[in-house]
Amino acid sequence: MSSVVIVGSVAFDNIITPFARGEFLLGGSASYASIAASYFAPARLVANVGKDFEERFLERFRKRNICLKGLQIDPAGETFFWAGKYHENFDQRDTLETRLNVLEHFRPDLPEDYRTTPFALLANIGPDLQVHLLDEMDPATKPFVVADTMNLWIDIMRAKLMEMIARVDLLVLNDEESEMLTEERNVYKAGAALRDLGPKFVIIKKGSHGAILFGPEGKLFAMPAYPVEDLLDPTGAGDSVVGALTGFLASKNATDFDSIKQAMIYATVTASFTVEAFSCDSLESAGREGIDTRAARLREIIEVE
Amino acid sequence: MSSVVIVGSVAFDNIITPFARGEFLLGGSASYASIAASYFAPARLVANVGKDFEERFLERFRKRNICLKGLQIDPAGETFFWAGKYHENFDQRDTLETRLNVLEHFRPDLPEDYRTTPFALLANIGPDLQVHLLDEMDPATKPFVVADTMNLWIDIMRAKLMEMIARVDLLVLNDEESEMLTEERNVYKAGAALRDLGPKFVIIKKGSHGAILFGPEGKLFAMPAYPVEDLLDPTGAGDSVVGALTGFLASKNATDFDSIKQAMIYATVTASFTVEAFSCDSLESAGREGIDTRAARLREIIEVE
Repeated sequence: MSSVVIVGSVAFDNIITPFARGEFLLGGSASYASIAASYFAPARLVANVGKDFEERFLERFRKRNICLKGLQIDPAGETFFWAGKYHENFDQRDTLETRLNVLEHFRPDLPEDYRTTPFALLANIGPDLQVHLLDEMDPATKPFVVADTMNLWIDIMRAKLMEMIARVDLLVLNDEESEMLTEERNVYKAGAALRDLGPKFVIIKKGSHGAILFGPEGKLFAMPAYPVEDLLDPTGAGDSVVGALTGFLASKNATDFDSIKQAMIYATVTASFTVEAFSCDSLESAGREGIDTRAARLREIIEVE
Repeated sequence: MSSVVIVGSVAFDNIITPFARGEFLLGGSASYASIAASYFAPARLVANVGKDFEERFLERFRKRNICLKGLQIDPAGETFFWAGKYHENFDQRDTLETRLNVLEHFRPDLPEDYRTTPFALLANIGPDLQVHLLDEMDPATKPFVVADTMNLWIDIMRAKLMEMIARVDLLVLNDEESEMLTEERNVYKAGAALRDLGPKFVIIKKGSHGAILFGPEGKLFAMPAYPVEDLLDPTGAGDSVVGALTGFLASKNATDFDSIKQAMIYATVTASFTVEAFSCDSLESAGREGIDTRAARLREIIEVE
């Protein structure tokens, strides 16, 4: 069993969906990713928050045995805040407000013992910070690096993003992002084009339609998503996917194609909990047993005989 | 090995895609479906054509050993004609012209020995004609009935369509049609709602995103589509799916959930040939060996370990 170091954002979110609304919810890519990862392997959180990040929020990470040595608490600032609204059918979302707050001056500062963590997850955050984290890692460790991103960084920080992607072992993005990056609409051509950018493995996620894994020598794995009947809030689904994915690989200390396939099963299942409630609520209450039960069910659903 | 009786349309199509155009192409739901089915089991075609349906077109069916005893040739009329244009990315298509011609007065007339065929495929055609074919079948045979439909019939012939659906064993439709019929956008809820209309099994197709099979007792199977890199013309993909599906089941003389899963593998693979060329061209040249090779590849792609 290896540990996972995770860099990303911790945030407060205001979210409006067609069915409900929530305010000052615990959010941010690193929150979802570290809680998801913690079901499989020890997670080390590298992020920053402000003085408004009350003890009860820290407690939610501690309950999942997430190491907070890398969490910087800025007594002068406020936690990154995001407000968004989902359209009917959750097809699209609008950002209503973004207050970077302490995130504006965030510089990941890696505790010494984090530098040799064998698995690193660059959750969604500016590619400059993702690259900075990689620079902070002990070069001799050669960690297995998993990375996520979002359309914003493709738009405004493309060169840095490309630099990050070139240093990653497993790149995870959605179909829209893969098309933006490669200008290739066909998902199979896009996957091949993304591997040409550097990553040995690429996963293209298609939301409720599942995901596709691309590996060396034309290796391909395609799977459906875990069936979700009652979607409440998709925020954090992608972060939960990469968290569980990396956590699972760390738990097996494995980085081969077949292990990534298995990790994808656990990843979609873990995300299926996330989207059933606001914030990390359902993710936190799922329990490893809940995740295992759904993973077994998904295995049944995709098995041919 | 059982036979399959197939009712549907035989047509000439004019098709414009973003990349190419074709005129007076052999088309129609029963053309695609019967050629697809013929790779697995003897197919019996019930359709009608006009005096313009030249010998060379009949020859294409004969080459696949499709029985044409049920094909009515109207010496006074012309074959059903459809012209359509696909939008960029094939997301949508517009009908440019429809000439019903001989299809307007089509009345499926079942040759006596067709009446006891153990598998019946109601390919896409008016639900009145689909019901008529079922009425012509020998009641003692209790054929396994597979049915397809399209948005048009949901719009203009809903009551008859419901009557047809209630008499079907396996209903196959796409996600848009399933939403139109059930008013349920969530595909898992839609699948359950469709089964409540009568069919023991329901398949909801999601185009390039694969398909989901719903069976009794909450049985579920989800699979990706066969990876297609060079889509030329999607016309006939759905018809090829139901043709291969029913043909495969007839070849095994099986109608259980696990056999339908296997049939779905062959169905998506067969359709992957169809969309790589205009008309039935690639479907006809695929060969059973080509289909088997892709089926083995798809099995690899969806297998977890």
